[in-house]
Amino acid sequence: MKSESQAPSAADLTALLHQEIPLSAYMQVSVAQLDAESIRLVAPFEPNRNIHGTGFAGSLYTLCVLTGWGLVTAWLKAQGLQASVVAHKAQIEYKSPVRGELEAQCVLPGEAEMAVFAQRLAARGKARLPLLVRLGEAVLFQADFIALREENE
Amino acid sequence: MKSESQAPSAADLTALLHQEIPLSAYMQVSVAQLDAESIRLVAPFEPNRNIHGTGFAGSLYTLCVLTGWGLVTAWLKAQGLQASVVAHKAQIEYKSPVRGELEAQCVLPGEAEMAVFAQRLAARGKARLPLLVRLGEAVLFQADFIALREENE
Repeated sequence: MKSESQAPSAADLTALLHQEIPLSAYMQVSVAQLDAESIRLVAPFEPNRNIHGTGFAGSLYTLCVLTGWGLVTAWLKAQGLQASVVAHKAQIEYKSPVRGELEAQCVLPGEAEMAVFAQRLAARGKARLPLLVRLGEAVLFQADFIALREENE
Repeated sequence: MKSESQAPSAADLTALLHQEIPLSAYMQVSVAQLDAESIRLVAPFEPNRNIHGTGFAGSLYTLCVLTGWGLVTAWLKAQGLQASVVAHKAQIEYKSPVRGELEAQCVLPGEAEMAVFAQRLAARGKARLPLLVRLGEAVLFQADFIALREENE
């Protein structure tokens, strides 16, 4: 399962999203920043508006789930771990309307927690990582992501 | 606030979604069935797939939130109540992958609960309605929708 580290760039991850998830391309989602422990995704307002002229609840959620998914996926690749990532459970709270560009941010838990995550993935072939994603003060999103080891070693 | 009943048809609601929420048009969401107390929305697989070749988490959530939003909105119009509807909090559980067409269903609570909802909206200008939406056995979604009375009476 362990292979060479292939930390993706922000541009790599944007291209992967657009290629594999058509909705992300329609939403014009872009990875604006990506490093070893944090990520920021943005999307323009127009394709993501609702009937009230604010950010659509479905777009806001989707940007959040892509933000969390992208960060876990990038981290696993950087570690040389071959695993697929899916969202399992999520909750979202819309605290205030979003106007203009959508921008979501996520930071990984500390090193100790990520080490446990990697150990569980190695030992059981499956591990859970809870992540918090924010769109400024407007939206709070929390999800459990599950990494599943890929067996084509 | 009370005006003539204007219960929308399934086709009316589909048209409203596509016109006002661009993401719903891209997803090819369609209201397949709508009556006084239930709704069913469908969307084809292709624009809503993910990297794993199954239904994308963001699309599944978005179909659920549109299903709940559509049913509350249609019910309010049918009652002759002028109010806008927004999602406030939501949670979703992805129990199993979705393959093929996406199909979401929602049923309103009983008449007594809907009467309380309408009374609160009339008295306070604002009322909350929790709804459960299912995509078969694969996805369970629960959200609180808030109706806000429109003041242009």
